[in-house]
Amino acid sequence: MMRKLLQSSLVGLLSLNIGAVGAAEVKPEDAVEYRQSVYTLIKWNFAPIGAMVKGQIPYDAAAVARHAAFLETLSKMPLEGFTPGSDVGDTKAKPEIWKNRQEFEKLMSDFQEQVNKLNQVAGSGNQAAVKEQFGATAKSCKNCHDKFRKE
Amino acid sequence: MMRKLLQSSLVGLLSLNIGAVGAAEVKPEDAVEYRQSVYTLIKWNFAPIGAMVKGQIPYDAAAVARHAAFLETLSKMPLEGFTPGSDVGDTKAKPEIWKNRQEFEKLMSDFQEQVNKLNQVAGSGNQAAVKEQFGATAKSCKNCHDKFRKE
Repeated sequence: MMRKLLQSSLVGLLSLNIGAVGAAEVKPEDAVEYRQSVYTLIKWNFAPIGAMVKGQIPYDAAAVARHAAFLETLSKMPLEGFTPGSDVGDTKAKPEIWKNRQEFEKLMSDFQEQVNKLNQVAGSGNQAAVKEQFGATAKSCKNCHDKFRKE
Repeated sequence: MMRKLLQSSLVGLLSLNIGAVGAAEVKPEDAVEYRQSVYTLIKWNFAPIGAMVKGQIPYDAAAVARHAAFLETLSKMPLEGFTPGSDVGDTKAKPEIWKNRQEFEKLMSDFQEQVNKLNQVAGSGNQAAVKEQFGATAKSCKNCHDKFRKE
């Protein structure tokens, strides 16, 4: 567990580092467009899983697995979009992201961990487990939005 | 080779199918936003590889590998965004995409294959090979844009 936490933190730091390398070249508005695009894709893949576990559309195990696999990769993308100085323009990102980076990255790591678990259960075909893990993942989204996203 | 082509086609058809399942629920403007977001992320990951192989910024093998791995997943995402009836609104997609679907999907498969190769050479650390495969991938982008994207 401790090792997993350390790994998550390390991945977070590495992402940040790679983000920082490119940051000199990246205009704030491009960073904003990038991260908003990441969240558009996360929603595109997350929403149908929600509709399925809530019984709004028929359950399709292959579609769930495909969306969950995409989500696992997408969950690794947002962080590098929060480049220094990109708390400007058409963004809902609160300035607290840059003032309290450690907590922001912790919540992002939590999200990545929940999506990782979602991807694991998606392959099992256990609908009840998928439903439960969908809820846990949604909560990890909300935890970060409540703290770091404007209304 | 034939088997690979058949697999690519099958993946294309499956993607299309999954897109079609959700299509009833998807508004055209959401499909447009989705696929434009995919291309924003593709550009975000592709551009720095180009800058590195052209010597505009220092070569960073780890960054190339990371971007190429993201690109491989992202290359599987655009197709499902071209839902029936979404050749409307703020889009550069030509109506030919829906009239000549088979050729569009063939060019998308070509792109996926080139990105797959890019991801393979990215791990090798062979800069010359990465540069060559970057060019081949850029050409596969252009082939589709020339035919199916408005100016």
